[in-house]
Amino acid sequence: MKIFSGIKRLLFGRRLANAQMGETLLPKRIALPVFASDALSSVAYAPDEILITLSLAGMAGFIFSWEIGLAVGVVVAVVVMSYRQTVYAYPSGGGDYEVAKENLGRFAGLTVASSLMVDYVLTVAVSVSAGVINAKAMLPFLQDHEAWTAVVVIVFLTIMNLRGVRESGAAFAIPTYVFMASMIVMVAIGLFRIFALDQTLLSETANLTVVREDGVENIAGWALVAILARAFSSGCAALTGVEAISNGVPAFKPPKSRNASRVLGMLGVLAITMLLGIIALANLTKVHLIDELTGTHYVDEVGNTIHSAATTVTGQLARVVFMDWFEPGFYVVVTATMLILFLAANTAFNGFPSLASILARDGYLPRQLHTRGDRLAFSNGIVMLAAAAIALVLIFNASVTALIQLYVVGVFISFTLGQIGMVKHWTTALKTEQEPEKRTKMKRSRVINFVGATLTGIVLVIVLISKFTHGAYLAIVAMGVTFALMLAISNHYLAVEREVALTPDSDRALPSRVRSVILVQQVNLPTVKAIAFARATRPTTLTAVTVAIDDDQVEQIIDQWEAEDFGIPLKVIASPYREITGPFIKYVAKLRTENPRDVVSVYIPEFVVGHWWEQLLHNQTALVIRTRLHFMQGVMVTSVPYQLKSSDARKERAKEAARRQVRG
Amino acid sequence: MKIFSGIKRLLFGRRLANAQMGETLLPKRIALPVFASDALSSVAYAPDEILITLSLAGMAGFIFSWEIGLAVGVVVAVVVMSYRQTVYAYPSGGGDYEVAKENLGRFAGLTVASSLMVDYVLTVAVSVSAGVINAKAMLPFLQDHEAWTAVVVIVFLTIMNLRGVRESGAAFAIPTYVFMASMIVMVAIGLFRIFALDQTLLSETANLTVVREDGVENIAGWALVAILARAFSSGCAALTGVEAISNGVPAFKPPKSRNASRVLGMLGVLAITMLLGIIALANLTKVHLIDELTGTHYVDEVGNTIHSAATTVTGQLARVVFMDWFEPGFYVVVTATMLILFLAANTAFNGFPSLASILARDGYLPRQLHTRGDRLAFSNGIVMLAAAAIALVLIFNASVTALIQLYVVGVFISFTLGQIGMVKHWTTALKTEQEPEKRTKMKRSRVINFVGATLTGIVLVIVLISKFTHGAYLAIVAMGVTFALMLAISNHYLAVEREVALTPDSDRALPSRVRSVILVQQVNLPTVKAIAFARATRPTTLTAVTVAIDDDQVEQIIDQWEAEDFGIPLKVIASPYREITGPFIKYVAKLRTENPRDVVSVYIPEFVVGHWWEQLLHNQTALVIRTRLHFMQGVMVTSVPYQLKSSDARKERAKEAARRQVRG
Repeated sequence: MKIFSGIKRLLFGRRLANAQMGETLLPKRIALPVFASDALSSVAYAPDEILITLSLAGMAGFIFSWEIGLAVGVVVAVVVMSYRQTVYAYPSGGGDYEVAKENLGRFAGLTVASSLMVDYVLTVAVSVSAGVINAKAMLPFLQDHEAWTAVVVIVFLTIMNLRGVRESGAAFAIPTYVFMASMIVMVAIGLFRIFALDQTLLSETANLTVVREDGVENIAGWALVAILARAFSSGCAALTGVEAISNGVPAFKPPKSRNASRVLGMLGVLAITMLLGIIALANLTKVHLIDELTGTHYVDEVGNTIHSAATTVTGQLARVVFMDWFEPGFYVVVTATMLILFLAANTAFNGFPSLASILARDGYLPRQLHTRGDRLAFSNGIVMLAAAAIALVLIFNASVTALIQLYVVGVFISFTLGQIGMVKHWTTALKTEQEPEKRTKMKRSRVINFVGATLTGIVLVIVLISKFTHGAYLAIVAMGVTFALMLAISNHYLAVEREVALTPDSDRALPSRVRSVILVQQVNLPTVKAIAFARATRPTTLTAVTVAIDDDQVEQIIDQWEAEDFGIPLKVIASPYREITGPFIKYVAKLRTENPRDVVSVYIPEFVVGHWWEQLLHNQTALVIRTRLHFMQGVMVTSVPYQLKSSDARKERAKEAARRQVRG
Repeated sequence: MKIFSGIKRLLFGRRLANAQMGETLLPKRIALPVFASDALSSVAYAPDEILITLSLAGMAGFIFSWEIGLAVGVVVAVVVMSYRQTVYAYPSGGGDYEVAKENLGRFAGLTVASSLMVDYVLTVAVSVSAGVINAKAMLPFLQDHEAWTAVVVIVFLTIMNLRGVRESGAAFAIPTYVFMASMIVMVAIGLFRIFALDQTLLSETANLTVVREDGVENIAGWALVAILARAFSSGCAALTGVEAISNGVPAFKPPKSRNASRVLGMLGVLAITMLLGIIALANLTKVHLIDELTGTHYVDEVGNTIHSAATTVTGQLARVVFMDWFEPGFYVVVTATMLILFLAANTAFNGFPSLASILARDGYLPRQLHTRGDRLAFSNGIVMLAAAAIALVLIFNASVTALIQLYVVGVFISFTLGQIGMVKHWTTALKTEQEPEKRTKMKRSRVINFVGATLTGIVLVIVLISKFTHGAYLAIVAMGVTFALMLAISNHYLAVEREVALTPDSDRALPSRVRSVILVQQVNLPTVKAIAFARATRPTTLTAVTVAIDDDQVEQIIDQWEAEDFGIPLKVIASPYREITGPFIKYVAKLRTENPRDVVSVYIPEFVVGHWWEQLLHNQTALVIRTRLHFMQGVMVTSVPYQLKSSDARKERAKEAARRQVRG
């Protein structure tokens, strides 16, 4: 066990209390990378998904990338505006769940919670998959090993999070700022070379023609509309993570809401700039992206068919912009993109237990998840999240194009309900607010949130219609199952709470006397300890009871009992079927019936052992008896533990674990 | 659950106490079938295995079947004689395990126990496989489905035994007597037709020539000796089950030992008669048996090669003796053979838990196996036995020829150690015995057991040498593992026993006072109940403790506490990491340190729920705290169960189960 715990320590290190992170308040320059890495990172795959979907319309499709990009940019702007209202109204950091629950009721809150939980899983799967695909641009040997590489990354993130690594601001800030800078510099240099230096920059896929596998060439009418709708839906993946700031308001330096609102604004400007910049450059350098899954392939200049997909848009742009004059530039862009995507996945590892804790507080998840100090519950959440993400990555072979179909639904359900909730919030607030100035502000906010709710609602409908059969239904099913499960848990807790609530009529009568019974299976130190403890409580009556399953053994027990002279009567119960539990329970039940106003206290000596397998060899009878006695009214069961020497090691291990947990 | 328990009832019925079987003492005419079915049934496959092994020497091999049969007969006679001494010396029914343990020590006893446990598994596998192969003689469609048919039979036997079917004497007696009668009648009629009526009876394989696959024709010298040794070893399978009577002495009508001894004698005479009769008739009707596994095949009169094996010896004899004049005779023989083989498998289902119970009493297996009234332990034994047998049947494709290689080793280890133990027993007894007449008897017994030990020892060596590489090593490995496991369990129990033994110096000091602590997580009925119970015990001090993990919740608890006015101080412990266990444990530890001579009694309110999944939603904190407190000296933990309404259903189920168990 020593070795094992050594390895465990090596892997998971000291457990650091996550609560501490919140204790240091963040200035804006750190808050931006901490909370925006998720949202900004989606810029790395949103253009790809737009182009890939458009490729379904053949070469003619790519013309629309501008329009789609602009449409997504508008949605980003509106959503950011909407959330700026939220951070003022709900500085507590509850996010959409809080907003929906308080304004639209339990079911809306639960709907948001389910979609957020499913989305956390998808964030991990999509971000890691996208990171791996980006890495392929510089590490081509990853080709055909994407899924397992992604699994390795997820496992690494899981171990880091089980270790409880403290994400210092720097860990977030450096890759995020490098990513932002390198992206903007890349776009700027690209545009400068094209427009100022008048150079012709052609991406590696510029000379490849995209052809549909089914040979259809001119897509028009409803078919084109459907493709454009799907491209827009996939592009909306750029919005994932925008809500993170509204959950993080309490971590901002004061004035919290104002700072959060300004960071949100910066995020909006940055995201739109980067998104449109990348799409513009991709258009100018003629990036033609396809994916094997969508039923298209390339044809090169001499007419050869190429089936495998090219690298990502970012990879292609970095290559064409930097490769011919400043090679390191390419590597910086690709590495920064990869890192920010992994960082985005990591935020889900923090968000998931956080959300679970809030949901547990509200009784939607097992209560023990609320106490985040509880290492076990916290770890369980991380492991569950990782397992689900790994399953997704393996099932969908780490294909972002496949996973993205499931992704956006949840985000927009939560956006829409959150914004509707905000509209309701302002309406309610206006009912009591008298001050004209504040009323004007509130009305303005309500308009903004109304526009936000309407737009995100429309996007949600578009996403649902255009993606339902492509995989979104799976996300809906997962959300439905999560919803039903949490509702069942909540109903159970509520029912129990009602059942055990104290009312004025509740029975508060004190039992008049205590009748104690000691279960004796052998006369040894644990039994002597149980007798000593039982006697110390000075019960009204104290009887030792042994069940006779073996004549020799009973005689031995009686002899030893008399020799020890405990001064307590030993009652021997016959057991015709060599069974301990039944006759003992019967005895206790009889004692209860004969003394209905008294409480029966049963003392059971128990061995405390050092290993789980020793547990199989001891206390089995005690366990069965205790379980059976629990069903009896007016009986309490006292375990008197006797610590065997072998338990020391385990005690030390438990102590050490506790120390590690509290420290840090 | 109602439906499920209904199905369970239908399948497993009321649980009948097995102990009852021993209460009716058996007359000899019932004892013979009850205890001898296993031994007699081996006559059904021993001749087959002798002939199959001899076929390795080609057509010339079959000539030796007489000699091999006689040699096996001699061993049967000697072993029966030896066991007649055992039943007089050990009328308690402990069998070879008891004899070896008492005379040769713990390791010898454990060796016998391991080999018996492995042999019980093999008895089920071999007997059922042989039964299925016999059934094939009349149900040819079973061809190629032997393994799964055997599995179905084992599952059926398992269900019957989990139901606890009372094996009435009749259930054993009828098939056993029909089997004995039909075998003897078959042999008698066969011999009568051949010698008295001078008819030529030729089996279906009489005209088939046996050829080795490798083409070798004249086997002589050591190769022939090796084949004869293996044929003899396989023939010794006829001895399996002979020891059953020595385990069953207590069930005989008095004079127990004498009656058991006489039944043993009858068994010996019957087994030898049947074995030699079958071999004689097989020889006269020119049965030529092969098995696909051994590397031989048939060539018919016109030179065609036939690869598939023929039916069993019994099947062939029944066909040639009865088919041309009295068809039902054939079916009676084959059916009776099949039934007695399944019956033999069934005896293992009784013997295994019986042995496990004795081993548990001696501390070699988890103690709870000793109380056979404990339905769970008993059922576990049956299921384990069935699972192991099913695995063997599937691995070896229900081939008796393959399984028999593993079988005989264990039997002869137990024979040899048992007989050596008996020699030691007589030597010890002679040291104190003065009466000349008894001394003469003892000396005679010692000679018989010495001959028995020598002969079975020699057979063991022959079996080991001739079969080791053919599969016996697997049985040895299984026994070794069983041995090591039981030794480890025993060592653990002995170490614990020494550690907890009461000595004159043991600490018997009474704690002076009781300091009670109630864990409060909410102010509700379970907490009120815990307070009432704790107060009833009138401790020296009584403190309620709550851990503050949530400010709102703590305020609510304090308010309710004051409103209820329990008259007990409520101590609120701070928990900076939102964790309950650690701070609470620390508080209790401090209480202990401050009052070293007192005992601390911790009261934990617990919910009693109806379903396992409800258990996941409650009591998790209580469970962790209880486990941690168990490691603390001088602390006892009292569960105060609060029965939720949903627990009623489970209580009813538990009661019903208990009723079923005791009834019957």
